[in-house]
Amino acid sequence: MNSANGFFVHSQAICESEDIGRDTRIWAFAHILPGARLGSECNVCDHVFIENDVQIGHRVTLKCGVQLWDGITIEDDVFIGPNATFTNDPFPRSKVYPQEFARTVIRKGASLGANCTVLPGLTIGTNAMVGAGAVVTRSVPANAIVVGNPAKIVGYVDARPVCHEQITAAGKVAAQTETMVKGVTLHTMNKFADLRGSLSVGNFGHAIPFKPVRYFMVYDVPTEEIRGEHAHRVCHQFLVAVKGLVHVVADDGIHRQEFILDKPTQGVYLPAMTWGIQYRYSPDAILMVFASHHYDATDYIRDYDEFRILTECAGNGRP
Amino acid sequence: MNSANGFFVHSQAICESEDIGRDTRIWAFAHILPGARLGSECNVCDHVFIENDVQIGHRVTLKCGVQLWDGITIEDDVFIGPNATFTNDPFPRSKVYPQEFARTVIRKGASLGANCTVLPGLTIGTNAMVGAGAVVTRSVPANAIVVGNPAKIVGYVDARPVCHEQITAAGKVAAQTETMVKGVTLHTMNKFADLRGSLSVGNFGHAIPFKPVRYFMVYDVPTEEIRGEHAHRVCHQFLVAVKGLVHVVADDGIHRQEFILDKPTQGVYLPAMTWGIQYRYSPDAILMVFASHHYDATDYIRDYDEFRILTECAGNGRP
Amino acid sequence: MNSANGFFVHSQAICESEDIGRDTRIWAFAHILPGARLGSECNVCDHVFIENDVQIGHRVTLKCGVQLWDGITIEDDVFIGPNATFTNDPFPRSKVYPQEFARTVIRKGASLGANCTVLPGLTIGTNAMVGAGAVVTRSVPANAIVVGNPAKIVGYVDARPVCHEQITAAGKVAAQTETMVKGVTLHTMNKFADLRGSLSVGNFGHAIPFKPVRYFMVYDVPTEEIRGEHAHRVCHQFLVAVKGLVHVVADDGIHRQEFILDKPTQGVYLPAMTWGIQYRYSPDAILMVFASHHYDATDYIRDYDEFRILTECAGNGRP
Amino acid sequence: MNSANGFFVHSQAICESEDIGRDTRIWAFAHILPGARLGSECNVCDHVFIENDVQIGHRVTLKCGVQLWDGITIEDDVFIGPNATFTNDPFPRSKVYPQEFARTVIRKGASLGANCTVLPGLTIGTNAMVGAGAVVTRSVPANAIVVGNPAKIVGYVDARPVCHEQITAAGKVAAQTETMVKGVTLHTMNKFADLRGSLSVGNFGHAIPFKPVRYFMVYDVPTEEIRGEHAHRVCHQFLVAVKGLVHVVADDGIHRQEFILDKPTQGVYLPAMTWGIQYRYSPDAILMVFASHHYDATDYIRDYDEFRILTECAGNGRP
Amino acid sequence: MNSANGFFVHSQAICESEDIGRDTRIWAFAHILPGARLGSECNVCDHVFIENDVQIGHRVTLKCGVQLWDGITIEDDVFIGPNATFTNDPFPRSKVYPQEFARTVIRKGASLGANCTVLPGLTIGTNAMVGAGAVVTRSVPANAIVVGNPAKIVGYVDARPVCHEQITAAGKVAAQTETMVKGVTLHTMNKFADLRGSLSVGNFGHAIPFKPVRYFMVYDVPTEEIRGEHAHRVCHQFLVAVKGLVHVVADDGIHRQEFILDKPTQGVYLPAMTWGIQYRYSPDAILMVFASHHYDATDYIRDYDEFRILTECAGNGRP
Amino acid sequence: MNSANGFFVHSQAICESEDIGRDTRIWAFAHILPGARLGSECNVCDHVFIENDVQIGHRVTLKCGVQLWDGITIEDDVFIGPNATFTNDPFPRSKVYPQEFARTVIRKGASLGANCTVLPGLTIGTNAMVGAGAVVTRSVPANAIVVGNPAKIVGYVDARPVCHEQITAAGKVAAQTETMVKGVTLHTMNKFADLRGSLSVGNFGHAIPFKPVRYFMVYDVPTEEIRGEHAHRVCHQFLVAVKGLVHVVADDGIHRQEFILDKPTQGVYLPAMTWGIQYRYSPDAILMVFASHHYDATDYIRDYDEFRILTECAGNGRP
Repeated sequence: MNSANGFFVHSQAICESEDIGRDTRIWAFAHILPGARLGSECNVCDHVFIENDVQIGHRVTLKCGVQLWDGITIEDDVFIGPNATFTNDPFPRSKVYPQEFARTVIRKGASLGANCTVLPGLTIGTNAMVGAGAVVTRSVPANAIVVGNPAKIVGYVDARPVCHEQITAAGKVAAQTETMVKGVTLHTMNKFADLRGSLSVGNFGHAIPFKPVRYFMVYDVPTEEIRGEHAHRVCHQFLVAVKGLVHVVADDGIHRQEFILDKPTQGVYLPAMTWGIQYRYSPDAILMVFASHHYDATDYIRDYDEFRILTECAGNGRP
Repeated sequence: MNSANGFFVHSQAICESEDIGRDTRIWAFAHILPGARLGSECNVCDHVFIENDVQIGHRVTLKCGVQLWDGITIEDDVFIGPNATFTNDPFPRSKVYPQEFARTVIRKGASLGANCTVLPGLTIGTNAMVGAGAVVTRSVPANAIVVGNPAKIVGYVDARPVCHEQITAAGKVAAQTETMVKGVTLHTMNKFADLRGSLSVGNFGHAIPFKPVRYFMVYDVPTEEIRGEHAHRVCHQFLVAVKGLVHVVADDGIHRQEFILDKPTQGVYLPAMTWGIQYRYSPDAILMVFASHHYDATDYIRDYDEFRILTECAGNGRP
Repeated sequence: MNSANGFFVHSQAICESEDIGRDTRIWAFAHILPGARLGSECNVCDHVFIENDVQIGHRVTLKCGVQLWDGITIEDDVFIGPNATFTNDPFPRSKVYPQEFARTVIRKGASLGANCTVLPGLTIGTNAMVGAGAVVTRSVPANAIVVGNPAKIVGYVDARPVCHEQITAAGKVAAQTETMVKGVTLHTMNKFADLRGSLSVGNFGHAIPFKPVRYFMVYDVPTEEIRGEHAHRVCHQFLVAVKGLVHVVADDGIHRQEFILDKPTQGVYLPAMTWGIQYRYSPDAILMVFASHHYDATDYIRDYDEFRILTECAGNGRP
Repeated sequence: MNSANGFFVHSQAICESEDIGRDTRIWAFAHILPGARLGSECNVCDHVFIENDVQIGHRVTLKCGVQLWDGITIEDDVFIGPNATFTNDPFPRSKVYPQEFARTVIRKGASLGANCTVLPGLTIGTNAMVGAGAVVTRSVPANAIVVGNPAKIVGYVDARPVCHEQITAAGKVAAQTETMVKGVTLHTMNKFADLRGSLSVGNFGHAIPFKPVRYFMVYDVPTEEIRGEHAHRVCHQFLVAVKGLVHVVADDGIHRQEFILDKPTQGVYLPAMTWGIQYRYSPDAILMVFASHHYDATDYIRDYDEFRILTECAGNGRP
Repeated sequence: MNSANGFFVHSQAICESEDIGRDTRIWAFAHILPGARLGSECNVCDHVFIENDVQIGHRVTLKCGVQLWDGITIEDDVFIGPNATFTNDPFPRSKVYPQEFARTVIRKGASLGANCTVLPGLTIGTNAMVGAGAVVTRSVPANAIVVGNPAKIVGYVDARPVCHEQITAAGKVAAQTETMVKGVTLHTMNKFADLRGSLSVGNFGHAIPFKPVRYFMVYDVPTEEIRGEHAHRVCHQFLVAVKGLVHVVADDGIHRQEFILDKPTQGVYLPAMTWGIQYRYSPDAILMVFASHHYDATDYIRDYDEFRILTECAGNGRP
Repeated sequence: MNSANGFFVHSQAICESEDIGRDTRIWAFAHILPGARLGSECNVCDHVFIENDVQIGHRVTLKCGVQLWDGITIEDDVFIGPNATFTNDPFPRSKVYPQEFARTVIRKGASLGANCTVLPGLTIGTNAMVGAGAVVTRSVPANAIVVGNPAKIVGYVDARPVCHEQITAAGKVAAQTETMVKGVTLHTMNKFADLRGSLSVGNFGHAIPFKPVRYFMVYDVPTEEIRGEHAHRVCHQFLVAVKGLVHVVADDGIHRQEFILDKPTQGVYLPAMTWGIQYRYSPDAILMVFASHHYDATDYIRDYDEFRILTECAGNGRP
């Protein structure tokens, strides 16, 4: 039952499209409508249904029970788990959710867990992971891991969160500590406490490795919010959680690491060309950021894929 | 492959029933058992399974991967999203959930989102909406919108919640304000505040447009509870959230509006023949209700469809 | 050493005034300036000092170490404890406290505890009691008991606070209960509670013994505030603490009783010609008051001494 | 369409395996790969898919839309609801969840609700119940009932939680009360309360029916945590919630009962050979446990099935 | 101006009593009534007034402005600061405070600070100290230090509170630590903490230096309360603050020390014949006490002076 | 009764000192020991007692019932209210309070309210005010107003606290606002708020009018604590309450003003030679301070009188 066109269709499957790539396999009880386009080396399992206005890249796996509706794009190397469900409209026939009727896009390398649900018009970012059973109601950034109903970010791929203490040598509080991410350092400021209260001091140019031209404070952040998700071309920053707790993800394009800031005497330094994310703010968190340059909109890189290309060109993180 | 009986069955589908309405279409890999009854203009998508004791109205859509078990009734104009799942028993072989083994009924115009789950014996009310991925463990009232696991009411169809201030003209606090719902008015009571505390006054027959014969207070309401969901034939009422916050939905059979009561100086007047709902009680909420008549069980209309018919006969909301 | 004028002066005392009543005694090391006027049967103990512009009634006791400055009036039957201290200015030479430079007046029957301090220009009301060591910074109403620094009202003379339950027969919740105060009754409203919350009902003309023409709510009252301190000539009222806890003092001119309202199902009825006080509001307290008449400024009696005279004329509380 | 081998295959189904038990039925559009092994009297509904390395016991029901992947074992008498979804990897292609790549095992008598999701490598214990729509991220102990996303234990089969007061005779506080579980007793310790505070006394060897050799306190337990889930061969224990609230399940192999400990004056005695579970800790809960023996790792029975066999041999709970 | 009777009276003073001890001095403007009895070596400063029914021991100092009323007893070696004020009745002419009309007694060695106020009928215990400006409304135990309005115990004479850590050698957590009080030891229990919570173990006979026959828990103690204030003849005890914070004072008759218990892993051992006090409970404090003997009313010594005599006889704390 | 030495002594007073200034008057029953030294134009009222080692300036008033012990210095223009009480030792014969046995000093222009109590060894600063009945347990800074038991600072003389908004023009939020204090400016930083949280920006050298060399944070300050109370010779500072609320008093030697910092977007700039005080910290307050210079102990002026002299020399605040 080898197709003449280089792809395989099970005898009990119905494939009405001719636009199927080499070595793609279509299994029993699957049904593909004529307009659908599939790349090469895909695997379409039993009981899958694919409508017409659907574009699928190379090396995509569609496990059993998945349906792809008009208006869905799947990029290369995506995995869609069994019974993962896409939607045309979260509340059919209504306009409850605000998103406009854009295409649903699953970016390169993303994985969707078994039995998850994806609302219409969302984008699942590059390499992002959707947990089994998650109900995705907002677009998912690159590398993010989401779980739950509604789905929330619980981490980033390949970045296990570490406390300050876990990274410094046991029993030794260093003023400055290297991390796995190029140029990113953790810092401990002096603290003086007496009956009148506590006092923490940081000298610019010393404990904080540059002289800032401005500060900004971030506060009143809902716990489920993510901030950052960008890199700076020339600006460098120093972050202190003066109250509460914040998770900071730093990424040099090669390595990624997540730091938990939870003491007013701890800071993290982010050099230029570091992709930075802050999230998991505690309800009372206040994040103080010292910045080396004035605000400049052109200094921001907001697309992770562009950031990766720039760091590759710069040989970032390479010996 | 046009059926002789005026409905369409795909060649790869199995339709064992003859009781199928005109222009209904049954797609590939669907399977309908002999006892099932379907109305006209229905759409039964791929991989759907329908048992015997199932009744389906007209213009019903069943997206891919849906199964309908014995004991399910679907009224006209219902939409069932892909992989939406019905149950015979929430915990098979046990009696964990208290509901008796009644039929599952999906009322006219209701929509069930993709991959939602509906426990057995529940009723999804007229025009109600179940969000994608929701797990429905209690019956859903007419017009309600539910999401989450377990599913909770987050709003009512066509009734965006408004604050008192949003409805009154900007910068002007009117003593009495018309709403979109027939006869329902919002009221502002006088307030006197100084360092010794605050004092709010309402005169019966003036600010409160009738002389009550009784009051009742509602308090200690769990946040997830809905109260009201009924209309009165002759009794009219005046509601004040003396503490905390309550959402009040008022419906004249034609128009529906949701009011956020969050100040002890604000009241809402509900005339007779108004369908009223109170929900989203804050944990500390106390709702004071003044009523124009003594309690009379026969004054209550508890079925929304009956209420709609009565208001139509009365020409409610019509010019 | 009997004075020729019918009063006694110790040989070691200095009495420069001649305006001293019969049987008044002035003891060793006391010093009275020429302008002071004292009534009969007073007792002026050792080390007392009295300036010129001071008026003292009959049967007043001034214990050791007390000074009375220009601008102080002491009515009949007052007791001033040892080292109790009056002031010309709380912060001498400044204007920190707002009270104008009125006379300090200690009304009939009041008692000032040992070593208390009274700021200038205040009135200590009829029969009021100031605790030992108290620092009185605001005027004290009739019958009130104050202690602490700054002094706060902790009770009223002859009115021990009682809970609703203490006044009703043991194990029996009466719908209506007599109190010691003429015409004042305690009421229990019906309550219905289930998992969906609680509901308390009061019928006007039945459980609430009149048909109100208005309600008013009192809330956000600072704990140290006292409200009421007046009687109505014709208006009667019904009070319910719909949230939190309030102490209500009722006084018919003869008897006085203090009720603790702490349940939304409990009310107290105050007929016309009842002196009423509300205090010890818990921070979350909301007091709902139903009134039998519209607001009328001339209906208020705000002076306790006037109230006493009116109730005496009316034979209030008399057999 | 009766198979020659004693089992039934629908003409539209694909059954590539020969290892199918007697009286097992395989319905339309189901697909079974050659390596799968099924017991007798199973029911494989429409649209089911079964891979090769799958072992299925007797009397197993697989409702529509279920897929069973390589590495799954289903024991006898299991029910799998419609669209219930198993996973190869919760986040495909990653190692986010810590569990190793063990087989997924559904133990004897367990039931999985409609549209639930089960992460890979988990065990669903004997007779356990997974609610409809639940997302199971951790193994489920024997008899436990789980619901939600992520799934949490909300009870145990056949063990409705009871308060101490519900078990003692009405109006009578017994020092020691029998329960339905063999040898397990509830105890009330003496309490002395006055204005200076409260004091609770328990005498070892008397109110507490043995002399402990050690105590341990359990505190700071996250609400979702379960502790215990084991029996002791010789050690007996006495549990008191000295702060907050804890649910304790006791099981003698025949009877099971759940006790709510919510007063520091209440204790529960667990004799040796009692399967004990503690869960639903309130955030402030502190559980004090007195133990009759020193810690001994060999004293623990951690497998419920082994516990059942041992109690059966001992004739536990038998007349 | 030397008195013939061996005591001194200033020429401007009035001394009507003859019952004055040797070397007692009475200064200007003081006034002593005939019935008063004073011991030897007393110092009665300017402007003091002493009534008839007053008994004063030896070496008592009465600073300026003090009055002693009928019904007051002052034992030896007492110091009364300037303007310290005694009362006949806290609210003259009423019965507001509950104490009966007992004598006011100031025990041996006690000191009353300047301008303090002492309500009637109270006892100030041996060596107790009343702070300047304090208003004493309850009797003060032996050795206690009180300040404020109303006065509260803030410490005990010669017993500065220490934390567990301050008493153990720096950087070294000893299982058992000696204290300054005879036989009293501090103990550290093992703690095991993981993601499921924390667990603290104490072995009786090992970490806790005896095998208890009972435990009792003390909880819901208002912050201002004092417990203990007694010694045991044979019973010994082990105290652990399993929640919150408690101050424990231990006294062997010679040495006194105050310990702050604030961790569930810390305990204090009190042998027999130790005077023990617990106070400054935090609002959430729970004190667990293990006792070596069953309750026996005759085992208690509740009078500190008796305790001192017994320990002296026993040579307690002597080499 | 005019003294030959130019001062007046009442015939019933005892004045043993000759060192009394011109026009000073000493009234009845007062007693002054030989070593005391009084300035001119003082007023010593009835029943005052003054020991030997006492120094009193000019124009001092001592109201009735005051005693001055050895070791007290009263500067010019001081007012001591009636029965105000000084102490030799707060707890006579002990060492409970930590202050060493320094002289008690009442600085120029200070006023002590009636019946207040002052513990030994304290200094009451220039122009400070002690409220009636206050119990002063710590030294009072210049210009401070204290009340209560124990006495706490509630304000500063001639400095009513103002909010940021009260000082800026109505309806207009200026980036920088002049104040009444020389060189001190209030600043509003930009704020950007959206659903993801709020962000506040301050540029060094712009909104913050200098480039700091360090920051320090002050937090965990007990509400009753006062910080600052000093000026800097060259260092200037910028203060922001990033959390909670702080009162800041600024004083240029001529004018004084108190600012309430309660928003993270508000800052106050203190130039060099500004006397600064921070107090009334809310429990959650965190004060961020940017400083223009590194820490230098010699930069601090800690004595207010020295500060006044230096600013006068500099012509501070003069036209």
